[in-house]
Amino acid sequence: MTEDFLDQVHWNADGLVPVITQDHVSKRILTQAWLNREALRTAVKEKRAVYWSRSRGALWRKGEQSGNVQELVEVYLDCDNDSVCYLVRQIGGIACHTGRESCFYQKLVDGHWRPVDPVLRDPDQMYGGSPSN
Amino acid sequence: MTEDFLDQVHWNADGLVPVITQDHVSKRILTQAWLNREALRTAVKEKRAVYWSRSRGALWRKGEQSGNVQELVEVYLDCDNDSVCYLVRQIGGIACHTGRESCFYQKLVDGHWRPVDPVLRDPDQMYGGSPSN
Repeated sequence: MTEDFLDQVHWNADGLVPVITQDHVSKRILTQAWLNREALRTAVKEKRAVYWSRSRGALWRKGEQSGNVQELVEVYLDCDNDSVCYLVRQIGGIACHTGRESCFYQKLVDGHWRPVDPVLRDPDQMYGGSPSN
Repeated sequence: MTEDFLDQVHWNADGLVPVITQDHVSKRILTQAWLNREALRTAVKEKRAVYWSRSRGALWRKGEQSGNVQELVEVYLDCDNDSVCYLVRQIGGIACHTGRESCFYQKLVDGHWRPVDPVLRDPDQMYGGSPSN
């Protein structure tokens, strides 16, 4: 696999760019995370969403603990080469560690963030007491 | 307007969070940009997409030069309180400074980023020689 496409990304001073993950059918935004070069290389190679976990300082294959794997359908880069979009097939229909479909479940209503999505699965069931994505 | 909703956002060390802007009907991701506290406050107040321009170090009311204003329809915050989503009505149908509908027009095809969207309007016409959003 050529790595030219990795060279073309404008990684920031920490070697990262933001990635937006979107359901490839509904187009709902599921999560926003971060990539480094290794994460993007691995995602494309393994055809699944892979991120860089800033908190853990490690490569993060989405769903490795929860089973909520995201199969990679398409990848896009923006006009400034510093933001990536993953279009994915969300296995199990749950992207968020809270057990919701999407991480973006807090809507601004009358000046307050209100949770507007149901919890579809108990996080304790997903992680067995170890909440992580 | 209460400012509690601004306090709840986990601004990074630079006082910023990423924002994803999505068409409220098609759900297409139009752009990814950055917010500081003042940008989010102003966006909600003026009901239009407002960003923080890191390159210019200034508040950026989308469309102030190009006319490609984004009317703000809904605002969401993610589970970690460190990423925002704007759902907008894109006036003119063009979000990108290249004259395309979306900034995410480079698709990864066989290991190469390929532009897959047409230019709908000449950037020179939009900016009169001063390319900026």
